[in-house]
Amino acid sequence: MEKREGEGEGEEEQVVNPWTVSAKGGGKIDYDKLIDQFGCQRIDQSLVDRIHRLTSRTPHVFLRRGVFFAHRDLSEILDAYERGEKFYLYTGRGPSSEALHLGHLIPFMFTKYLQEAFKVPLVIQLTDDEKCMWKNLTVEESQRLGRENAKDIIACGFDVTRTFIFSDFDYVGGAFYKNMVKVGKCVTYNKVVGIFGFTGEDNIGKVSFPPVQAVPSFPSSFPHLFGGQDNLRCLIPCAIDQDPYFRMTRDVAPRIGYQKPALIESSFFPAMQGETGKMSASDPNSAIYVTDSAKEIKNKINRYAFSGGQDSIEKHRELGANLEVDIPFKYLSFFLDDDAKLEEIRKEYGAGCMLTGEVKQLLIQVLTELVERHRRARAAVTDEMVDAFMAVRPLPNMFN
Amino acid sequence: MEKREGEGEGEEEQVVNPWTVSAKGGGKIDYDKLIDQFGCQRIDQSLVDRIHRLTSRTPHVFLRRGVFFAHRDLSEILDAYERGEKFYLYTGRGPSSEALHLGHLIPFMFTKYLQEAFKVPLVIQLTDDEKCMWKNLTVEESQRLGRENAKDIIACGFDVTRTFIFSDFDYVGGAFYKNMVKVGKCVTYNKVVGIFGFTGEDNIGKVSFPPVQAVPSFPSSFPHLFGGQDNLRCLIPCAIDQDPYFRMTRDVAPRIGYQKPALIESSFFPAMQGETGKMSASDPNSAIYVTDSAKEIKNKINRYAFSGGQDSIEKHRELGANLEVDIPFKYLSFFLDDDAKLEEIRKEYGAGCMLTGEVKQLLIQVLTELVERHRRARAAVTDEMVDAFMAVRPLPNMFN
Repeated sequence: MEKREGEGEGEEEQVVNPWTVSAKGGGKIDYDKLIDQFGCQRIDQSLVDRIHRLTSRTPHVFLRRGVFFAHRDLSEILDAYERGEKFYLYTGRGPSSEALHLGHLIPFMFTKYLQEAFKVPLVIQLTDDEKCMWKNLTVEESQRLGRENAKDIIACGFDVTRTFIFSDFDYVGGAFYKNMVKVGKCVTYNKVVGIFGFTGEDNIGKVSFPPVQAVPSFPSSFPHLFGGQDNLRCLIPCAIDQDPYFRMTRDVAPRIGYQKPALIESSFFPAMQGETGKMSASDPNSAIYVTDSAKEIKNKINRYAFSGGQDSIEKHRELGANLEVDIPFKYLSFFLDDDAKLEEIRKEYGAGCMLTGEVKQLLIQVLTELVERHRRARAAVTDEMVDAFMAVRPLPNMFN
Repeated sequence: MEKREGEGEGEEEQVVNPWTVSAKGGGKIDYDKLIDQFGCQRIDQSLVDRIHRLTSRTPHVFLRRGVFFAHRDLSEILDAYERGEKFYLYTGRGPSSEALHLGHLIPFMFTKYLQEAFKVPLVIQLTDDEKCMWKNLTVEESQRLGRENAKDIIACGFDVTRTFIFSDFDYVGGAFYKNMVKVGKCVTYNKVVGIFGFTGEDNIGKVSFPPVQAVPSFPSSFPHLFGGQDNLRCLIPCAIDQDPYFRMTRDVAPRIGYQKPALIESSFFPAMQGETGKMSASDPNSAIYVTDSAKEIKNKINRYAFSGGQDSIEKHRELGANLEVDIPFKYLSFFLDDDAKLEEIRKEYGAGCMLTGEVKQLLIQVLTELVERHRRARAAVTDEMVDAFMAVRPLPNMFN
């Protein structure tokens, strides 16, 4: 469950799948085209308003600002919720690195909001098996990274009475494995080649993996949580590069007598170097990590955050900043909760009254606080807490 | 783990894989060619003598008569055994039918002999997941058939203190799943196409399955049995159509730091209609089932067992029976334990002194006794016994 790992495709069409995110001609991802291509729906203002109404709380900044911009069957989930029917949330992470960057936190921050707003249970899949295969990590190293990442996930503030975190290496088996076989029976090799672009030289472990990510969409994969509630609906918050897995899942679901999962999908968090760049594990300056010190954050933003400001102050005062490409502004639109303040910056910076340096200063302050808060929360996560979240156990009050 | 399910290939080359056994031009399987093609070794008399010496008991009739005729690394297993190092046995069954026929019993009868002769533990895999996919059975039906088949297997006389029977649907997970991923990482899709003949229209469940059958070859897949004994060798008694799985397994083993499993492989048990025929689930007269009544056995043998005797008594007295194609004699060579008696029949029947009817009479007697003995043993197998064999438990005295 990670993106941006493939190679850029140069002049080719845009490619978005769980391992490759590359825009046409090295430009920006065309999200409208992606929605058409994938066949999902755009989240419009009326849907955001409806969520506001149903949850009686201000929608999360990621929803207000269109970070989560696309969905599948979200309206049906809300219809059911309005009738008093609950659902559960499913998200995940492929543990391929020690430290998470801000982009990694986005689905978890948003999922925490959804959990609180709707008061619903949540399953979080650590696809250590996937990373063992794709990243050629050992089983032990994948599991170790999974536990480390679980600490960062827990630090986002999930409620242990409503949250089950599981490692595939630990949890695959039983009802979960039965569902894997049911899904695997319904999907041909040609089909996964079409969806994921596998080749004959890919190993069969990879070919076997899509059902592993598919089946947490079905409540019967978690008998200790949802025993007997086979019609419980599932809502998956994720980045849109994961859509191929769930297109496959939704195609299979009715054929095996299950509900299709609904999705709420985000755009990609841009790299420091700009939206056409890629966050790269081999370039620590392409992203802010949750382990970065205040000094590192300051240096990275000042040195590497791509500016949409003009070359000279004179020109900037005259033309204003190009907010479409400005990374400090983009990052603020993700992490500055104050709508009025952001609107002010949009106007002032866009008009050239505010300089890039001032915007960067504000961003440094916002991110330093966010990272510092995360660091404190993570430091408080003990191994016992990880064990508690990962224990295979019923969650008796998960819908209360 | 079943054979003879594909279609005949007419004039094509012989095809032997877990789903298709067909000879060139509809004739007999050329086992010498198979040994060359697969790269295994023939079991010669000196190897049989060595097993006799090491176990201090007469080798099983299936070994004396060449039913188990090929091997991989059996000498190494015996070398180690002679040095005092033990090994474990692994065999299995794909539960696709309610009632077993005699051909199904062969690996289990032989495995029971090996277990007793060498005093070693045994794991028996019920590949209910495989049959769910290949036979399009439901999960529940595959598991039900697995339990029914387990009763027949237990009725062969296995020692519960040395035997672990498991259903894939129940047991896949944990250490077993970790090994599946390790194996899956080492095998490309092209490779399994070459080994098993999968096509792009096969479902990915099938493509995912070879690692499931591979990993019981590794002791670390059974931590409750072999915890810490990662170098314990494994010997697999099976029909030679299963060789492709274990060629793949042996290819992968050293790459993931594991011992290659050794194999001891049988030829195929012929259909009633002759060695060029196929035992077919849709034709109950092609095989003797362990559920057949004495009357059914008698009728089937009298009516359908292909005879190598001559058309008329005069001609038979003159030319004798063609033992190469005679099914009553073949069947006796599998199931008549008395070497002297079989030799007598070979001479008398081959010379035309004995008639087909007399040989059939003897076979009816032998098989009726065998089936009756099996039926009694199976009737005595309770659900509690099945649970006991299938319990995930240590076997503290398994090497004594």
